[in-house]
Amino acid sequence: MDYRIEKDTIGEMKVPADKYWGAQTQRSKENFPIGGEKMPLEVTYAFAHLKKAAARANHALGKLSATKADAIARACEDILSGDLDEHFPLVVWQTGSGTQSNMNVNEVVAYRANETLAGEERVHPNDDVNMSQSSNDTFPTAMHVAALMELDKRLLPSLDQMIATLREKEERFQDIIKIGRTHLQDATPLTLGQEISGWRAMMEKSKGMIVESSRHLLPLAIGGTAVGTGINADPTFGSRVAQELESQTGYAFQSSDNKFHALTSHDELVFVHGALKALAADLMKVANDVRWLSSGPRSGIGELTIPANEPGSSIMPGKVNPTQSEAVTMVATQVFGNDAAIGFAASQGNFELNVFKPVIIYNALQSIRLLGDGIQSFNDRCIEGLEANLDVIEGFVSRSLMLVTALNPHIGYEKAAEIAKIAHQEGWTLKESALRSGYVTEEQYDEWINPEDMVNK
Amino acid sequence: MDYRIEKDTIGEMKVPADKYWGAQTQRSKENFPIGGEKMPLEVTYAFAHLKKAAARANHALGKLSATKADAIARACEDILSGDLDEHFPLVVWQTGSGTQSNMNVNEVVAYRANETLAGEERVHPNDDVNMSQSSNDTFPTAMHVAALMELDKRLLPSLDQMIATLREKEERFQDIIKIGRTHLQDATPLTLGQEISGWRAMMEKSKGMIVESSRHLLPLAIGGTAVGTGINADPTFGSRVAQELESQTGYAFQSSDNKFHALTSHDELVFVHGALKALAADLMKVANDVRWLSSGPRSGIGELTIPANEPGSSIMPGKVNPTQSEAVTMVATQVFGNDAAIGFAASQGNFELNVFKPVIIYNALQSIRLLGDGIQSFNDRCIEGLEANLDVIEGFVSRSLMLVTALNPHIGYEKAAEIAKIAHQEGWTLKESALRSGYVTEEQYDEWINPEDMVNK
Amino acid sequence: MDYRIEKDTIGEMKVPADKYWGAQTQRSKENFPIGGEKMPLEVTYAFAHLKKAAARANHALGKLSATKADAIARACEDILSGDLDEHFPLVVWQTGSGTQSNMNVNEVVAYRANETLAGEERVHPNDDVNMSQSSNDTFPTAMHVAALMELDKRLLPSLDQMIATLREKEERFQDIIKIGRTHLQDATPLTLGQEISGWRAMMEKSKGMIVESSRHLLPLAIGGTAVGTGINADPTFGSRVAQELESQTGYAFQSSDNKFHALTSHDELVFVHGALKALAADLMKVANDVRWLSSGPRSGIGELTIPANEPGSSIMPGKVNPTQSEAVTMVATQVFGNDAAIGFAASQGNFELNVFKPVIIYNALQSIRLLGDGIQSFNDRCIEGLEANLDVIEGFVSRSLMLVTALNPHIGYEKAAEIAKIAHQEGWTLKESALRSGYVTEEQYDEWINPEDMVNK
Amino acid sequence: MDYRIEKDTIGEMKVPADKYWGAQTQRSKENFPIGGEKMPLEVTYAFAHLKKAAARANHALGKLSATKADAIARACEDILSGDLDEHFPLVVWQTGSGTQSNMNVNEVVAYRANETLAGEERVHPNDDVNMSQSSNDTFPTAMHVAALMELDKRLLPSLDQMIATLREKEERFQDIIKIGRTHLQDATPLTLGQEISGWRAMMEKSKGMIVESSRHLLPLAIGGTAVGTGINADPTFGSRVAQELESQTGYAFQSSDNKFHALTSHDELVFVHGALKALAADLMKVANDVRWLSSGPRSGIGELTIPANEPGSSIMPGKVNPTQSEAVTMVATQVFGNDAAIGFAASQGNFELNVFKPVIIYNALQSIRLLGDGIQSFNDRCIEGLEANLDVIEGFVSRSLMLVTALNPHIGYEKAAEIAKIAHQEGWTLKESALRSGYVTEEQYDEWINPEDMVNK
Repeated sequence: MDYRIEKDTIGEMKVPADKYWGAQTQRSKENFPIGGEKMPLEVTYAFAHLKKAAARANHALGKLSATKADAIARACEDILSGDLDEHFPLVVWQTGSGTQSNMNVNEVVAYRANETLAGEERVHPNDDVNMSQSSNDTFPTAMHVAALMELDKRLLPSLDQMIATLREKEERFQDIIKIGRTHLQDATPLTLGQEISGWRAMMEKSKGMIVESSRHLLPLAIGGTAVGTGINADPTFGSRVAQELESQTGYAFQSSDNKFHALTSHDELVFVHGALKALAADLMKVANDVRWLSSGPRSGIGELTIPANEPGSSIMPGKVNPTQSEAVTMVATQVFGNDAAIGFAASQGNFELNVFKPVIIYNALQSIRLLGDGIQSFNDRCIEGLEANLDVIEGFVSRSLMLVTALNPHIGYEKAAEIAKIAHQEGWTLKESALRSGYVTEEQYDEWINPEDMVNK
Repeated sequence: MDYRIEKDTIGEMKVPADKYWGAQTQRSKENFPIGGEKMPLEVTYAFAHLKKAAARANHALGKLSATKADAIARACEDILSGDLDEHFPLVVWQTGSGTQSNMNVNEVVAYRANETLAGEERVHPNDDVNMSQSSNDTFPTAMHVAALMELDKRLLPSLDQMIATLREKEERFQDIIKIGRTHLQDATPLTLGQEISGWRAMMEKSKGMIVESSRHLLPLAIGGTAVGTGINADPTFGSRVAQELESQTGYAFQSSDNKFHALTSHDELVFVHGALKALAADLMKVANDVRWLSSGPRSGIGELTIPANEPGSSIMPGKVNPTQSEAVTMVATQVFGNDAAIGFAASQGNFELNVFKPVIIYNALQSIRLLGDGIQSFNDRCIEGLEANLDVIEGFVSRSLMLVTALNPHIGYEKAAEIAKIAHQEGWTLKESALRSGYVTEEQYDEWINPEDMVNK
Repeated sequence: MDYRIEKDTIGEMKVPADKYWGAQTQRSKENFPIGGEKMPLEVTYAFAHLKKAAARANHALGKLSATKADAIARACEDILSGDLDEHFPLVVWQTGSGTQSNMNVNEVVAYRANETLAGEERVHPNDDVNMSQSSNDTFPTAMHVAALMELDKRLLPSLDQMIATLREKEERFQDIIKIGRTHLQDATPLTLGQEISGWRAMMEKSKGMIVESSRHLLPLAIGGTAVGTGINADPTFGSRVAQELESQTGYAFQSSDNKFHALTSHDELVFVHGALKALAADLMKVANDVRWLSSGPRSGIGELTIPANEPGSSIMPGKVNPTQSEAVTMVATQVFGNDAAIGFAASQGNFELNVFKPVIIYNALQSIRLLGDGIQSFNDRCIEGLEANLDVIEGFVSRSLMLVTALNPHIGYEKAAEIAKIAHQEGWTLKESALRSGYVTEEQYDEWINPEDMVNK
Repeated sequence: MDYRIEKDTIGEMKVPADKYWGAQTQRSKENFPIGGEKMPLEVTYAFAHLKKAAARANHALGKLSATKADAIARACEDILSGDLDEHFPLVVWQTGSGTQSNMNVNEVVAYRANETLAGEERVHPNDDVNMSQSSNDTFPTAMHVAALMELDKRLLPSLDQMIATLREKEERFQDIIKIGRTHLQDATPLTLGQEISGWRAMMEKSKGMIVESSRHLLPLAIGGTAVGTGINADPTFGSRVAQELESQTGYAFQSSDNKFHALTSHDELVFVHGALKALAADLMKVANDVRWLSSGPRSGIGELTIPANEPGSSIMPGKVNPTQSEAVTMVATQVFGNDAAIGFAASQGNFELNVFKPVIIYNALQSIRLLGDGIQSFNDRCIEGLEANLDVIEGFVSRSLMLVTALNPHIGYEKAAEIAKIAHQEGWTLKESALRSGYVTEEQYDEWINPEDMVNK
């Protein structure tokens, strides 16, 4: 393999000739041969937005020439195009401030910028790309930008689509009366539409929590530099960068009102991830309901049919494994695990820095990605294809003994209970038992026992 | 012991003669001899508010006589006075809908109400106290009421006091310049006030998250009855009760817009507890900083002095164990564990009910109580008494090599680095090394090396 | 209230006249008004064993008079009798080394001992009861002793009884062939006995893990004193105490071979609790199976009947809520939360001490107690009363299409699949479809389709 | 792109022409576009061992020709060589039984086998490669095989090396007396070797737990097929495969004595991961100690020096960020999160299957890999290079007031306390204060105050 020699303050490093990174990236690559989990590219892209904004702010402050600022901006756009993904080789398990991923971006931006600058000025990774910045304020800034953009791009659209699909089902099934179940035991009836409205409300409410909590990600650490005092940066630098970021991305970013907090606390991401956990808990519940309601085909509940996306059994027709439910409940499980890791990491800051930043953003972005993809797949390949098995649903309602409560006002509690008790003992339907009892006529039964009256649509 | 005989639909039960509860409470007591963790009294009190409000609503709807409604209301007030605490013996580990705690309240309210009714009308636990209600909608209602009131009564006042104390320290220490530390390594300076402002911002921001998220507790399940359809309740019952509760407690409760969600999802409590976890993570960080900064007396960092609340060592003066920090970090740890339990429990609903309600509210209330008490104690017995050790703080600043960065603009990076390097090798102060180098005079040094310029107050 | 004055090195304290504790306990009571969770009495009892053993060892070493050693031993026995429980008022949220609970025991033992010593010698809490000891080695010793004894006394007997009950059911139901279910979908048959054998194996295997892992609790910290070097204690003190403890309790305790580990690491309790978590996961699965299999009575699976321990519904016969399953799954949930707290706490040691000891043992003992009680109750009030609903079970088997696989060898895969497919479409039984197809005669069908051949008993 | 057409029972699929997989793999690839986390290759390799062993067993049972069995075995070896990695494209978030990863292996093995069979016999993915097997028993078998082999290959060697390094340091530093610290406060002295021996004991003990618990992975599900009854497999198949696997891998695998357990419970992996969590907690403690002891260079504790692996600060000599500690504490954090996910997943089985298998093994293997790599890197780049700063260590010991306890026997407790108290007030060394007090001569002091006597080496 071809190498070139790059240097940092410790010494020389051999870097692959076709890669844009420099000595510090190479050193990190060699010093942290741990796992294979790469720093998420979304962090790199957030850095690209940030480095471009920082260059513009530094230029506006008269600290960086237009030539350099433009070259940096162009290099950042190249990163954002996805063409330079291969130049970001570092893993999550590195310096806990994410220093080396910051340096990786600085080195790649400088190298790329210099490719476009024909000899005139040269862009330096530290002096120019990292100007007025420190890993300690850029990395948490990139965490907020990446998390917010991923929520918007990856999770919320899937969630919206799921909500729309559930609403459509809810309306379509609004007249199907079915048995309710509490404690897994038969209970009073409701409509299938009502049941699904509960699922829809879960998605809507947890979406609301995500949106609300994610506003806490708008304040950024940028401007705090090494310890939060903003040493080596102009006092206006933080808010200038936030404004540039807003015009680049459309998000109303601000400079955090307390940079000491911004470098050491990740309470915002703990809070946002709490909302993701609420969604995961709801999702678990919905996916479980779907698979239980479609259990069978003969020995389960079977009120719903779900799409058969893959062979369930080569010989057993009707065996449709609820594989999308399974995938999405595994996703929810992972989100629970990630939540534990994030809370723990966020608690471990000391003095002016929390050095568990990479593990926090890795877990947060995994949760967002998995929830987004998982909900989309669950929506497209399962919820959209949900069908009601009317025969089964009606059979349960007609066999149910819970409807007996409707006889109370007409024949009194005791006779009603007697009818139900005998039906249970003999295995009769409620109607059969009622007619045999002689307490009601068939006409009366059909008039009085009307599940539709019990569902309060 | 003296007993009386009480009955439920299964049969007779012996109940201690001096207790107000009935057969169903007694049966639960005998059926769940598990652990010793009682259903928190805060849940019982929330039930008392609720039963009173329900009686008023039922009366307004013409379903309950004024005599009965008043008797129920008086009994509820007796519960709220704390005089009847001994009549609520049930544990957390019971039916998962909290049915038996609901019945416990119904039975005690009825018994107590009947004591005050001289023979005229009799209040029935189910027919009157539980009228238009089900465990399935009352228990989650009581969960929200209890959590919200506890947050307000137990946690937020402590947090506010802590914030005030930190702000006072921040102002008092605003001119004390100290060494910053990142990666536990010496870094550029900041003021002690700035450092403490980061702690204050943590408390403020996580308080904001708690307040914001707790608004999700205002919508109540009441009115949903058994499965969410509101069977056996007037359609206006839920909002009438919410309104009564508002006038009783001052909180803007509403009837939830989707009762199917309200019975099966506890996403709101997961979300609120996520905010509590964010606070716990911040608290862990602050308490750790406090104990590290006060470590010593001779072999630690020792920049701060904390109050000596108890004997640290009988012979070793100056050994002050940071016991309040230790208590509060254990509290934070418990909150992390509780968070895992709550998220898990919230994910396990099926169909029209989640039957993990008692374990959810038990953990949530423990977190609120521990955080409230822990913060109060930490504030009163540690933070209020924090003092700065000026000698130590100044010693670190004067010995620090980080200040060398201030020489760069004057003598250039290379000479500055040489001064620092020699100081490090020889164990000299920076000033000593600078003067010996011949690159700067003492006057220049004192003029140029000014930590105050580096903290951007 | 009556008080007496007690002193420690800080000053005087008012102690309730009828309580045995002294100034340091009183001070802790006042300094940590946090939550209400008392230090578990099991820890106090473990301390009582330990203080008695320590007195004997100190006497054998010639450091403590026979009079004093005997008086201490008697006082410890009084504690173990349970008569002195009210004298241990401290909460979990105290100094992280458990110092004050150690002092509480020292003070109560001394006070009680002195009551029995008519003026002659006086037992001093520190000099005599705590002789050769430190909180730092006694508290972790008490943690191990308490956990081990509670496992043996509270958890393992319940687990054994559960295993025996399951084995009895397994044998009783060994000939009942039922439909298997994977992915919640119908699958090939097995016997009910086989299904229950899986539950039994879960209990057996996780029991094995608990027993195995708990051997790691036998090495004790005692002898390490303040930092692990054993300062102020005879080098043989640790092993002498371990031996005394063995003769007092029957457990083969040893003095840990590395006291620096013993004071700072709680890997043993993390490991043991991992086994408890494995049991909790298994228990969740079993309790879920039980409630799903008994779901109904008309609209669920209904293969099993569970005891009706309390009124399910006043009018709905046959509605038996699976309340014991609900209690035990909430217990499992709590164990998961506790596991998170314990792991976290165990990771937070620094230098010569981990100061999260109280929160670790509080959670571990709660898990043991809840699992023990929960399993016992689940066994007594649910598993013992499990009955098979033969009609339902046979109905599912006879309606199942999975049995078609048995026709393959006789009529070939394609014809068999055709029979199943038509049965599914038309809602026929497999036999009906097979006979209508003309591919098999009734005699052949009855000979070939034999679920008993498919279960490999 | 070039495609070929493959078929399964649902229909035709386009498969990339250069890939070995078939229709079911392709269908899974399209149906689960969730996240990017691939099913770990270690699972695939375990499957390769298993499929080879199964082919041998089927051949021995006379069910598979030698030609086919050999071709399958060769294909499995090709997989194990790593050359076919690109043919396993599936993600973790798929069917919860891992069905599609089993089919992926079946398809690739068949395709590859058929490449080597010149037209004669054809190997069929289901009929031949999956003969006598089901996803439900092969996937949990592969989980055990993969976890066990990874523990042995990836984690234990790193751990052994770490233990050896620590032992070497322990011996080298056995005579360096340093101040002990409890509650972060100065305490009685110990040697640096003793302190490190505590770290070594942590590694040794948690290694013991891992080894012990991992024996529970030896029993395998294989032979249980679809529901645990072993339908479609010879009764000896499970033990034959276990024996083949033993001869292939050297591990004493057995056929599980209860296959119903083996398909539905993952208590073994929960237990093993509990041991990994114990290790993670210990690791967190050690890595924290290392970074605190090397904090500074001027304003921290600074008793140790760690290697400078990358530039800490460009101008600040002596600032060496403890980046390896940071990486390894983030690894520990991840292991805590994974532990939560695994416990949760293991609790969610129903009836004859647990469908959270992929998420369990994904998290378990990540933990093993991260711990193995993290420990190796921490060992190589940090622990091996640890050096003691004798000046600092001795300075703390000489300045410490804790040594005063050694004067008690000579001048009495009160005079000793007075000396210490004045030293603390005046900022004097203990010796200075002692000599000024007039209670001891310099000779006496030097004779009596001997830290070496306090460490009980």
